[in-house]
Amino acid sequence: MTHRIAVLPGDGIGPEIVEQALRVLGALGMDLETRTAAVGGAAFDEFEHPLPPATLELAKNSAAVLFGAVGDWKYDSLPREFRPEQAILGLRKALGLFANLRPAILYPQLANASSLKPEVVSGLDILIVRELTGDIYFGQPRGVREVEAGPFKGERQGFDTMHYAETEVRRIARVGFEAARKRGRKLCSVDKSNVLETSQFWRDLVVEVARDYPDVQLSHMYVDNAAMQLVRAPKEFDVIVTGNLFGDILSDEAAMLTGSIGMLPSASLNASNQGLYEPSHGSAPDIAGKNIANPLATILSAAMMLRYSLDAGAQADRIEAAVQSVLEQGLRTADIYEDGARKVSTSEMGDAVLKALK
Amino acid sequence: MTHRIAVLPGDGIGPEIVEQALRVLGALGMDLETRTAAVGGAAFDEFEHPLPPATLELAKNSAAVLFGAVGDWKYDSLPREFRPEQAILGLRKALGLFANLRPAILYPQLANASSLKPEVVSGLDILIVRELTGDIYFGQPRGVREVEAGPFKGERQGFDTMHYAETEVRRIARVGFEAARKRGRKLCSVDKSNVLETSQFWRDLVVEVARDYPDVQLSHMYVDNAAMQLVRAPKEFDVIVTGNLFGDILSDEAAMLTGSIGMLPSASLNASNQGLYEPSHGSAPDIAGKNIANPLATILSAAMMLRYSLDAGAQADRIEAAVQSVLEQGLRTADIYEDGARKVSTSEMGDAVLKALK
Ligand SMILES: CC(C)[C@H](C(=O)O)[C@@H](O)C(=O)O
Ligand SMILES: CC(C)[C@H](C(=O)O)[C@@H](O)C(=O)O
Repeated sequence: MTHRIAVLPGDGIGPEIVEQALRVLGALGMDLETRTAAVGGAAFDEFEHPLPPATLELAKNSAAVLFGAVGDWKYDSLPREFRPEQAILGLRKALGLFANLRPAILYPQLANASSLKPEVVSGLDILIVRELTGDIYFGQPRGVREVEAGPFKGERQGFDTMHYAETEVRRIARVGFEAARKRGRKLCSVDKSNVLETSQFWRDLVVEVARDYPDVQLSHMYVDNAAMQLVRAPKEFDVIVTGNLFGDILSDEAAMLTGSIGMLPSASLNASNQGLYEPSHGSAPDIAGKNIANPLATILSAAMMLRYSLDAGAQADRIEAAVQSVLEQGLRTADIYEDGARKVSTSEMGDAVLKALK
Repeated sequence: MTHRIAVLPGDGIGPEIVEQALRVLGALGMDLETRTAAVGGAAFDEFEHPLPPATLELAKNSAAVLFGAVGDWKYDSLPREFRPEQAILGLRKALGLFANLRPAILYPQLANASSLKPEVVSGLDILIVRELTGDIYFGQPRGVREVEAGPFKGERQGFDTMHYAETEVRRIARVGFEAARKRGRKLCSVDKSNVLETSQFWRDLVVEVARDYPDVQLSHMYVDNAAMQLVRAPKEFDVIVTGNLFGDILSDEAAMLTGSIGMLPSASLNASNQGLYEPSHGSAPDIAGKNIANPLATILSAAMMLRYSLDAGAQADRIEAAVQSVLEQGLRTADIYEDGARKVSTSEMGDAVLKALK
């Protein structure tokens, strides 16, 4: 059976890091059909839209999307709907990619890269499960309106709506519990139920779903406290499950704890395990085209793709082992370079992973 | 002129830390009238409400509120409106305390307390200006309703409304710019304008207000990036201004970067400089009544009170210098203790600050 993969390189370093991931995928001897399409600023330049209809169609009709990165300063002044990042929001919504999996792993070889003390972060391995299609990201109504009453009556007011329906909470909670079951069996649900109705609703449902997972230890934490505990003692966490907005903030904070965001992949899945796979870092336009970006987060995203959308866990393991091996050999791109290591380019890193695959 | 101060000790370690702050205030030779009232769980026990009418009246009729801390596990199962933390929300709303000032300072003597590498945090001195009466905290409508259309039609849905009116954004932006002007002249406004209408509205107004502060360097950052940059290079920030929800998360994250949250005060001010002053840490019921809690955050909150609500900056300076001095003498409560220091109790720390005041 041929698996179709939509390849969306995007902007900045997107094309060069995706190229390395494709080389690695190509070396596995699997039956993969890759089709490339424009996305983000590159798509805007060519088709006047960051997510052209043909790109969306291709994504819908593929088993998975391998995504590079989008964004560049030069699009900052466009109206919001034309900005590169709208492509990501559009793909999430159109494909129903409600489950975002973001591991924050600190490879022992890179412990020094972190701004935290080695003893606080070495061996860090947490998974953030972020809900990705609900919450205040897509909630209606939203906009600018006139204030109708109270002290600011008659003024303009910007507003948004946060909401979660039962099914949305239950299904992401299940993803969290299932993931915890395969790992350390600890799930921390993060909310702000001391203030928000949406959060109280969320918490009550997570408690209900927990009945089906007596083997997983569930805890609850307010988001402000979670932001603190991630700094204080991140290794106390195993799996965190949270909403779209809090997940956006906490997953980035957790990623930065490792100091090596160039290493971190991500997966965004829908109910049929169709998924979008992208590095956790951005498009880094300042270093684009220089062949110095770190391709490992994208290569590891390809591994997640094999595991979650293509049911090829053994091949995913192979890629991950190859990445481990190049780290052990002391190869480092500039972003994770330190004294004593061997500095390599984007393509040399790709070469090394390919070689380690054999 | 007599300044009336409402003293609300609250729960857990609240009473014992407030006691030390009162001793310090009493030693200044100022004309202060302090009146104590119940708040939080303690108030619920006595009056069946976390913010009894008499407490609220006292707060309204005082120049400032000196607040300890509220909360205890034993109130966790109460309906939300009776839980201790509702007292804080009630006071903010009733007194119109829209401007929350939260310094995150790492005293050089305590550099080891941080989970971050010393070179990343030593000398840290940032100020978070958090809007405190708007945003999704108080936005109506909110609650649980039936979904009217779409894939979840007929299900229950929890929802909240985020909003900011023009005046709300302008006045907190001004607080941010004024604060930056007295410090490093750098203001970073944090929002999520790539996703939220409220944030785009916020950003546009901050840019407008900036015209009155050409001497302050304004930047904008998305909240997810801010959560990362605080971990990566916190010293790059000077003043951060942000909304209520993002400020809740980022101010706690920033506080924890110091590793010594027992040292951090906070101020919440309204338009007439009436204010509520409280330590940034919580009520720590596990160590309550043991005379081991750190009273310095509360003592430093009293100093902020003198500076912002009582126009007694010189007295504030005296307290802050006394706190510096006890740290230099090597005195440490348990939370900030390290080898070689002299471990002291809550009251011994109070004694030492009093002595250093002379
Ligand atoms: C680009 C932006 C809309 C997006 C988000 O907020 O979800 C990004 O920050 C992410 O986390 O993937
Ligand atoms: C107790 C809670 C309602 C409060 C808040 O969210 O504002 C607290 O976290 C704070 O930051 O003062």
